[in-house]
Amino acid sequence: MVKSKSEKIEKKYDIIIVGGGSSAMSAGIYAARQKIKTLVVTREIGGQLSLITVIDNYLGFPNASGMDLIKKFSEHFNQYNLPVVKEEVHDIEKKGNSFIVKTDKNKFESKAVILATGRISKKLNVPGENKYYGKGISSCTICDAALFNGKTVSVIGTGDSALHAVLHLSAYAKKIYLLTKYDKLRGDKIRMEKVSNLEKQKKVEVLYQAKVTEVFGDQFLKGIKLEHNKKLRELKLDGVFIEIGMSPETEIIDFIEKNERGEILINSKNETNVKGIFAAGDCTNISEKQLIVAAGEGAKAALSASRYLETLE
Amino acid sequence: MVKSKSEKIEKKYDIIIVGGGSSAMSAGIYAARQKIKTLVVTREIGGQLSLITVIDNYLGFPNASGMDLIKKFSEHFNQYNLPVVKEEVHDIEKKGNSFIVKTDKNKFESKAVILATGRISKKLNVPGENKYYGKGISSCTICDAALFNGKTVSVIGTGDSALHAVLHLSAYAKKIYLLTKYDKLRGDKIRMEKVSNLEKQKKVEVLYQAKVTEVFGDQFLKGIKLEHNKKLRELKLDGVFIEIGMSPETEIIDFIEKNERGEILINSKNETNVKGIFAAGDCTNISEKQLIVAAGEGAKAALSASRYLETLE
Repeated sequence: MVKSKSEKIEKKYDIIIVGGGSSAMSAGIYAARQKIKTLVVTREIGGQLSLITVIDNYLGFPNASGMDLIKKFSEHFNQYNLPVVKEEVHDIEKKGNSFIVKTDKNKFESKAVILATGRISKKLNVPGENKYYGKGISSCTICDAALFNGKTVSVIGTGDSALHAVLHLSAYAKKIYLLTKYDKLRGDKIRMEKVSNLEKQKKVEVLYQAKVTEVFGDQFLKGIKLEHNKKLRELKLDGVFIEIGMSPETEIIDFIEKNERGEILINSKNETNVKGIFAAGDCTNISEKQLIVAAGEGAKAALSASRYLETLE
Repeated sequence: MVKSKSEKIEKKYDIIIVGGGSSAMSAGIYAARQKIKTLVVTREIGGQLSLITVIDNYLGFPNASGMDLIKKFSEHFNQYNLPVVKEEVHDIEKKGNSFIVKTDKNKFESKAVILATGRISKKLNVPGENKYYGKGISSCTICDAALFNGKTVSVIGTGDSALHAVLHLSAYAKKIYLLTKYDKLRGDKIRMEKVSNLEKQKKVEVLYQAKVTEVFGDQFLKGIKLEHNKKLRELKLDGVFIEIGMSPETEIIDFIEKNERGEILINSKNETNVKGIFAAGDCTNISEKQLIVAAGEGAKAALSASRYLETLE
C-alpha cells in the first residue's frame, strides 16, 4: 500500500492527480516517467477495485481478484515514489493560471490537475437504509460476502454489478434473492447464464418488477419490505447488497462542464473545457466504464497534461 | 502462442478482428465474454510488442519485456479459445450489410469488423538498422528513455515527435544529438525554444543536413555513420531514437474515412464512418499510441460492436 509521505510533502506541483484507482495510478506512472513534479491526493488507493471479486477482462491478468490487482497496480505505481496524500479533496479552485486543490487539512497548488475520482454506488433512498448501512447493508461483496455464510441475502440491481454480486455471494449464502425493478436482467451473457443456472438450482430467486420500500431490523437488519408485481411483500433477510449503479465523484469541482449524469465532459485528449484541467476514467463521459479503459485513459490524460506543461512559459 | 486452428475454421462470423496486438487481444477477450462468434485474423500475435525491449508503463507489469507481455497477453487471450487464422489480410469488401475479409488463401464473412492492425515505424532503410532494432534502436522515448540514464543518444527527426523525444530524453541522457536532414527544425515554438536552451547548455547538439548512412555495433548498437554537411562522420552512441514518423497499417481497406496520415477516423465509441466497422488502437487517430491505451480501446471497440450486433435483425 502507498503511504502518505507527509513529512516530505511540498505545497506546489506541476500536476496534481486527484484519485487513487487504476486511472489515477496509470496517470501517475506516466507523469513520473516524464519526470514531472506530481502529487497524488486520494482518500484511498484502489478505488472501485476493492469491490470486485473476480475480474477477467484486464488484458494480462486472467482470473484476478480486485485485491490482487490493487496489489499489482500499487506495487508498480509505488516504484515511482510519487508523493501521495491520503486525504479527501473537497474543493478545487482556479487561481490565475494555477489551481488550488483543497482537503480538510491542506491546500496544494499545481499548474495542471488530472481528475480521476471514479464513481461510487448509488443509494436506494428508502427508510432504514442509512440506519442499517454496515449493519446488514453493503455495496461490497468482496468485503462482506463471507459474513453471510449459510445465510439468506438479497442483491438489489439489474446489471453486471448485480450479477457479479450474486455470483460472488453464491459461494457463501444459502439463498440469494435478486431484486430488479425491471422485466429482465441486462449484462454480460456469461454472467447471465451462470445466474440462470443458480436459479435452476433454487439457490437464486429472481424477483422482477420488485421495488424496495423499506429496510427494517433491530440492532441489525432483519429484512426488507417491497412492492413485487404491484403487491406489498416482506422478505426476511440477513443481508442486503445494493448494486443499482454508480455516480461519478465530480462534486469537488464546479467550474468545469459535466453532462446530466454529472460526468465530466472530455475530448479525445482528456481535456476538459478548462485549460490545465484533465480528466480520466469513470468520472468522465467515456462510453465504457471498464478497468482497462480507465487505465488507458489515465495514461492519455497524463501525456496530454505533459504536453500542456510544455506549452507554458 | 496462439495456434491457427484451421481445421475448425468456419467461414461466417459475427465479428472478425483484424490484427494481433494488444488492442486486438483485448477486443477478443471482450467479444468472447459476450459469447459473440468471433474470428481473429492476423499475420502474427503480439504486434509492435515484439519490438520493445523493456516496457514499464502498462499498469500492473513493472519492467516487463515485450516478449513477457506477449506471453501474458496471449495466455489470457487463449483461455477464451477464439479461432485465430494466421494469415495476412489484404482486402476488406462490403457485401450488403456484411463484410468480406480476404487473405491470400481464404475469404471470411462477418456482420462486424474490428480493425486493430496497429502501425509500423517508418524506417531509415540503412544497413544495421534491422539488426539493432530493440538493441539500442527504439522508436518510443516514452517506453525506453529511462534505459539511457547518463548515456549518449541520438534522435533522428525534424518535427514535433523528434522535439518531444529530445525533451523527454533530456531528463535522462547525458548528451543528445538531434539529427535532421533539413536546414531547420519544425515544430511547436515553445518546444523548439526548450530544445534551443538545452543546446546552449551543451546537453543537446543539433546536426542539420545530417543523413544516417549506417548503424554499427557488436551485440548492441555502438554508433552511427552519417553524412553531415556533405562530409562523412561517425558518432559513438548508446542509443538511437528514430522519430521520422509511423505508418498505420490501414491500406487493406479503402472505403472508410482516414486522415492525411492514413489513420482511421473513429469517434469516442470506436465507430468508423461505415456502420459495422470499428477500429481500435494505433491504426486509428487516437491521440496517444500507447500499449495500455490500445488495450482499453480494443475493449471499447468490442463492446461497441457487441451493441451494434444487438441492433441487427
